[in-house]
Amino acid sequence: MRIGIIGAGSVGGTLGRRWAALGHQVTFGIRHASEGASAVKGDGPLPAGSSVALPLEAVTNAEVVVLATPWAAVPAVLEGIAPALDGKPLLDATNPLVAGFAIDPALTGDDERGRRTISAAERIQSLVPRARVVKVFNTTGFDNMRDPIYPAGPLTMFYAGDDPAAKAVARALAADLGFDPVDAGPLSRARELEHLALLWISLAFGGMGRDIGFRLERR
Amino acid sequence: MRIGIIGAGSVGGTLGRRWAALGHQVTFGIRHASEGASAVKGDGPLPAGSSVALPLEAVTNAEVVVLATPWAAVPAVLEGIAPALDGKPLLDATNPLVAGFAIDPALTGDDERGRRTISAAERIQSLVPRARVVKVFNTTGFDNMRDPIYPAGPLTMFYAGDDPAAKAVARALAADLGFDPVDAGPLSRARELEHLALLWISLAFGGMGRDIGFRLERR
Repeated sequence: MRIGIIGAGSVGGTLGRRWAALGHQVTFGIRHASEGASAVKGDGPLPAGSSVALPLEAVTNAEVVVLATPWAAVPAVLEGIAPALDGKPLLDATNPLVAGFAIDPALTGDDERGRRTISAAERIQSLVPRARVVKVFNTTGFDNMRDPIYPAGPLTMFYAGDDPAAKAVARALAADLGFDPVDAGPLSRARELEHLALLWISLAFGGMGRDIGFRLERR
Repeated sequence: MRIGIIGAGSVGGTLGRRWAALGHQVTFGIRHASEGASAVKGDGPLPAGSSVALPLEAVTNAEVVVLATPWAAVPAVLEGIAPALDGKPLLDATNPLVAGFAIDPALTGDDERGRRTISAAERIQSLVPRARVVKVFNTTGFDNMRDPIYPAGPLTMFYAGDDPAAKAVARALAADLGFDPVDAGPLSRARELEHLALLWISLAFGGMGRDIGFRLERR
């Protein structure tokens, strides 16, 4: 697939490098063209099949877009690429964290169900209503995206969204990396996935280190 | 240990029956003395080492108390047993759910960190400030409490609290059942564990069934 990745940090860089190595055509959106490939985190030169471009160009040429920027950057980033997102799957890997490993209080407000905290993914969907948002790639660290295989088997990658076709893309791209993809339901379930990310982060940085991850077991 | 269990439904009944079978002394708090042992869910007669009593009596005689009632019943239940909770570990297995598999909007409000959703466990701690609340036994189904062993190994039981001694009790009682106990940090992390429960519930009732559970993997 032609994949546009917005955010070339540890998560975006790792995902894009792996997909490119698997044969996908990856374009990393970077803020300043002058930075070139050095703007993309990760070891060594960019793999064949990947390149850099300004964000709008990266999205325009893509069949699917991955959003992997810091949460604070999201509104400005979306404003810049919104015209090219219409109808495209937008895979939201962000986590709406503020200092103290807490959910951004700006996501708490009143709606028809009363006062509650909505997800970053729902907020993103409201900012780009014509994109087909799927929450995915937010519940584990970039090291696990590089290698999701643990002694007990592959880690689980949960995804949540309202558009079946966009969810199928998320599922396939997660499986390509070696994850066990699990459908967590509609986009409103992104709230649980963002709290799961917070649990991962608090465990990893609370002393367990980054070589941990979740598996959903069945029997 | 002498364990008082408030709430004799599927979760309380399963936990108490298993602990009693393992040699703990279990008292189930039931609402009406006339119901007797029939008030405790589960198969067959109560195991040796377990009995029923009114809630206040069950708590008075206990070294550790497990709260496993429906969320809506919590305030009235706590009011009835509060005098006997001072200094005791209170293991909070509740989940603050309302219709539509959503977190109770009454838990969303303003505090020093802004508007946010607090956990049921923190609300419970504020209602009984002299108990030592630990969030635990809320992130999986009662079937998994009966048998937490999956092909990949034992399911993980996360716990969160502010009192180290009370957390050690939670950890030991989870390990007794066969779970892999994992310390998820201070009581404020109960928010993540309650969302993890919501993820389990939405997956189980969304089509996967109850024979699923979470494992935290390490490598």
